[in-house]
Amino acid sequence: MIKSYKRDFDYTYTLGVFETIEALHNKPEYIKQVYLHSSADKNKGVKRIEELCELHHIPLEIGDKVIARVSKKSNCFAIAVLDKYLMQLEDTSHVMLVNPGDMGNIGTILRTMLGFGYHNLAIIKPGVDVFDPRVLRASMGAIFKMNVVYFDSFEEYQKEYGERDIYTLMLKGATNMYQITPEATTKHTLIFGNESSGLPDTYLDYGKSIFIPHNAEIDSLNLSMAVGISLAYFSKDTFLHVESVEKIY
Amino acid sequence: MIKSYKRDFDYTYTLGVFETIEALHNKPEYIKQVYLHSSADKNKGVKRIEELCELHHIPLEIGDKVIARVSKKSNCFAIAVLDKYLMQLEDTSHVMLVNPGDMGNIGTILRTMLGFGYHNLAIIKPGVDVFDPRVLRASMGAIFKMNVVYFDSFEEYQKEYGERDIYTLMLKGATNMYQITPEATTKHTLIFGNESSGLPDTYLDYGKSIFIPHNAEIDSLNLSMAVGISLAYFSKDTFLHVESVEKIY
Repeated sequence: MIKSYKRDFDYTYTLGVFETIEALHNKPEYIKQVYLHSSADKNKGVKRIEELCELHHIPLEIGDKVIARVSKKSNCFAIAVLDKYLMQLEDTSHVMLVNPGDMGNIGTILRTMLGFGYHNLAIIKPGVDVFDPRVLRASMGAIFKMNVVYFDSFEEYQKEYGERDIYTLMLKGATNMYQITPEATTKHTLIFGNESSGLPDTYLDYGKSIFIPHNAEIDSLNLSMAVGISLAYFSKDTFLHVESVEKIY
Repeated sequence: MIKSYKRDFDYTYTLGVFETIEALHNKPEYIKQVYLHSSADKNKGVKRIEELCELHHIPLEIGDKVIARVSKKSNCFAIAVLDKYLMQLEDTSHVMLVNPGDMGNIGTILRTMLGFGYHNLAIIKPGVDVFDPRVLRASMGAIFKMNVVYFDSFEEYQKEYGERDIYTLMLKGATNMYQITPEATTKHTLIFGNESSGLPDTYLDYGKSIFIPHNAEIDSLNLSMAVGISLAYFSKDTFLHVESVEKIY
């Protein structure tokens, strides 16, 4: 029986049609079961879910009670129950979050990373559980296209992925971000601290510390905004010559 | 008696110590009354509230019942009740939001605007009420340093503020944002659409339509992220030579 999610479970579930489709597209091999709500419109999304379940031989049934039990929102029309899986970081550019605490922030960050071509996220523990259904939802399923790995410490991460440019985003950062001329092709890791406390001072010793300049009227940008602005800046070369959004798709 | 907020009220209230201090700093003339919770720590924030109320001759009292009535959260220790006031746009660069619907997004946008030196927001109706206590909270009080004005239509806005560069941020935008070389000193308005539906096609006829390039793995950036990335890009010149965060403050 599917219970309300806890971190130590070996399974998780999506909450919503969009996230369920993303899971079915990207990680069908881990999906055990899909439930639809009896009042779900037979809209395009639900049809797509039916097609994908058939294609991948995934059991699909009406499950109003299950959905009511795990979803607090009344407008949840589909859930996919899936086994958690291990991920590995590719040896490309990474984002690192040190002790992230906010589910919504992580969701937004995952989605924004995906948009700018960053598929690999390292999290230094303790940190939000990216398999939490609220994160899956906030990421709009972006998590299913990404790799997220937890590390006990920066040192543990560095042992495995040391050969790269390290940038720590800190209010005390030594260098204005705009004075860095990043090349999207040079392997790098961008490191961000906790929503409230930022990065510990020890991170001043790792790589190059940078700050996003803004004026004095705010204390700091919020975390997901800081990540988004940095990723846009560091990946700019990749997107400089895109001529239209049609060219993207 | 202070009631749970509705849009047609002629007053509003802050929910929290930080926002209350921002209101006291920036708009003391509109504050009628400040309430503290009896269990509020006598921390730095509460002391600051007491000082500012004394300075501006604003009534301050313990108001556990009022706070319980208007705040759904248990950790709200201060509220300032203030009259709503009329704002006017300065004739500088603006942000325009067309039919924004999400309180949290608007709060983040207001705060980010402030950080990048954009103090003036035009909203095309219908759109979120920026005096809603949830917006005040999400903006962390940034609203009290800004001007927000509602317009019935783009044409109404244009009559008053026509002489400027107009950029519409649209997925169908004709030009990659990075191919624009904005000068922070040139007066401009950056226009963004609704969270779900974006800008109507009619906006293709106004000014220059641009898009933030990203890859095909996401449909679009979320609204506040798109605003933040655009503002960072358009205001970059202003912040290019800031040498350290200490220089900011």
